[in-house]
Amino acid sequence: MTRNSAVSRMDELPIRDELRGKSPYGAPQLDVPVRLNTNENPYPLPEPLVRRIAERVTEAARQLNRYPDRDAVELRTELARYLTHTAGHEVNKDQVWAANGSNEVIQQLLQTFAGPGRTALGFEPSYSMHGLISRGTGTGWLSGPRNDDFTIDVEAARAAIAEHRPHVVFICSPNNPTGTAVEAETVLALYEAAQAARADAAGALVVVDEAYGEFSHRPSLLPLIAGRPNLVVSRTMSKAFGAAGLRLGYLAADPAVVDAVQLVRLPYHLSSVTQATALAALEHTDTLLKYVEQLKTERDRLVSELRAAGCRVVDSDANFVQFGLFEDSHATWQAILDHGVLVRDNGVPGWLRVTAGTPAENDAFLDAVRAVLKESKR
Amino acid sequence: MTRNSAVSRMDELPIRDELRGKSPYGAPQLDVPVRLNTNENPYPLPEPLVRRIAERVTEAARQLNRYPDRDAVELRTELARYLTHTAGHEVNKDQVWAANGSNEVIQQLLQTFAGPGRTALGFEPSYSMHGLISRGTGTGWLSGPRNDDFTIDVEAARAAIAEHRPHVVFICSPNNPTGTAVEAETVLALYEAAQAARADAAGALVVVDEAYGEFSHRPSLLPLIAGRPNLVVSRTMSKAFGAAGLRLGYLAADPAVVDAVQLVRLPYHLSSVTQATALAALEHTDTLLKYVEQLKTERDRLVSELRAAGCRVVDSDANFVQFGLFEDSHATWQAILDHGVLVRDNGVPGWLRVTAGTPAENDAFLDAVRAVLKESKR
Repeated sequence: MTRNSAVSRMDELPIRDELRGKSPYGAPQLDVPVRLNTNENPYPLPEPLVRRIAERVTEAARQLNRYPDRDAVELRTELARYLTHTAGHEVNKDQVWAANGSNEVIQQLLQTFAGPGRTALGFEPSYSMHGLISRGTGTGWLSGPRNDDFTIDVEAARAAIAEHRPHVVFICSPNNPTGTAVEAETVLALYEAAQAARADAAGALVVVDEAYGEFSHRPSLLPLIAGRPNLVVSRTMSKAFGAAGLRLGYLAADPAVVDAVQLVRLPYHLSSVTQATALAALEHTDTLLKYVEQLKTERDRLVSELRAAGCRVVDSDANFVQFGLFEDSHATWQAILDHGVLVRDNGVPGWLRVTAGTPAENDAFLDAVRAVLKESKR
Repeated sequence: MTRNSAVSRMDELPIRDELRGKSPYGAPQLDVPVRLNTNENPYPLPEPLVRRIAERVTEAARQLNRYPDRDAVELRTELARYLTHTAGHEVNKDQVWAANGSNEVIQQLLQTFAGPGRTALGFEPSYSMHGLISRGTGTGWLSGPRNDDFTIDVEAARAAIAEHRPHVVFICSPNNPTGTAVEAETVLALYEAAQAARADAAGALVVVDEAYGEFSHRPSLLPLIAGRPNLVVSRTMSKAFGAAGLRLGYLAADPAVVDAVQLVRLPYHLSSVTQATALAALEHTDTLLKYVEQLKTERDRLVSELRAAGCRVVDSDANFVQFGLFEDSHATWQAILDHGVLVRDNGVPGWLRVTAGTPAENDAFLDAVRAVLKESKR
């Protein structure tokens, strides 16, 4: 898509007008020694789990000529068990749905509850795919406000909801790219506001995106789904489970929501090998959550050492840290890259985002930042 | 979804109006001895391929903490090589795109070239997901005509295209559920008609769905993409590769089409384990295509024995056969099921569809049909 010839040739095709001149989403994948740009977990899966995946996939491969379990019942049962054990609230398989990454979960929710003629609202800066998938599903996108410290301004948010009456509201907690956790009271206030704004219809769906939930200092917001049929919590195995390559996202909500997304899901959307691999990983939850604890410690170290180096740093509940303030954040991004460390420029003016890596990777990153700050003072 | 309580509770949610009262797509999965209802390949993957999948997936699992290759370059290269060797036309990776099943390929094409305010046209009865995914992407669906023998009536089709000016036209060859192959001349005539009807815009996309292409008596329609930037051929590994559980669909088209679908694809949509498994299967193409030859022989036997038994049978180029005519095809479906054989009632009045299974499964099916026909004469 970097080739101008491809872009111009694409424009000769009968593509939708709003896609003309656009580029695909995605961080640049550069070949540098230390890559801390996509919030991946730096720890490879332990070898016993790799062997268990091979066993489970072998079993699945012997029946690969058959369609997968369309409803992924075993997987949803085990995801429910995991949530029950870790998120402080008992859920069962009828309250859980899974898809190819939380992106597909979000796409299915938007196809069901939003789409053409409807709107979705998020508080930016936030996970940019909320807006992109909204547009991809024909949903109007509304950008709500945040405070200067990137928390959600509850009164302003309530006012935006009352004014625009969105059909879907996204609350990302911890928020990507800022790392900011959202208080339960804030979620409840926005949930009530969203229901009130659309009280004449059947209310509005509120999606709490907890992709980084396991890294938070605070408990999950999952228990809030009790008694709130329009509240959904989405999760992923990409981060805490160290399985970004697996593409396994899931949600927990009222069983009626799970029934509803089945009206739009592509049949047999989740392959047998994906289901088998995810089930193997769920058998090794305890080991994987130990890596999460290490990453939380390293995340906290990044926050304190960046502050000691003179950076402004947003409090983080995720496996990444937003730091600044830089007059020209893209130039700083490039300068850090010139020291062999790739971080993320999310386009938030003044700020950059770094993923917590291994201790050695984080040391390399901190050395690079210190060197860049020193150079900039000369 | 069979529970009325779930349906009524779902209607209390703020779902889209057009989804209210709907049920999810999907054939009933009944536990009977012989299941010939979903066009699966009856032959399990050979054990050396199962072992190769385990090897490839083990390798992928060791890097599962990293996102997959977003552009699936190795996989697209091997799919291009496969098409070049089998479909009589040289294609390269820039002309090939892959996704989670041909359903996702079709969804991405509709999001790019159709969607809200646009229309798609198919000739029914055909693969019902064309219409369902159109509706799921906000695309208006238009049902075009077929002749009584289920071939496409070229003049009527041209007239429908000229009248409705669809943005996307689906041509399924061999057609599901009828098994009917489409002549290259027909595709060319409809392609020209579709471009002419939208000559003021950039033309219209024509999608030739060759999910069952490897089972045809005729060569692939793939060579027609040369010089036709708005022509797409979609394929799947579900049937010929005996890998319905894998969910791997792909397309071949002008490189500009491949660039265009990347504007709507969810980033990292294709997992590392899916890519690894598909690559393993592509190493075993020769063995898998031998099973295809066996299935073609069995398909031809089904056609001749059903005709000998007194059924009307549509000529088939697929791994399934449409047979009739029954006064009450659903009652006949049930009667065959009572003999332990599950076939498919696609809702085409008078007709049923049976998948070519193993010789023993096909014998059981033929015995069941003969018994049912005998009972109905009493």
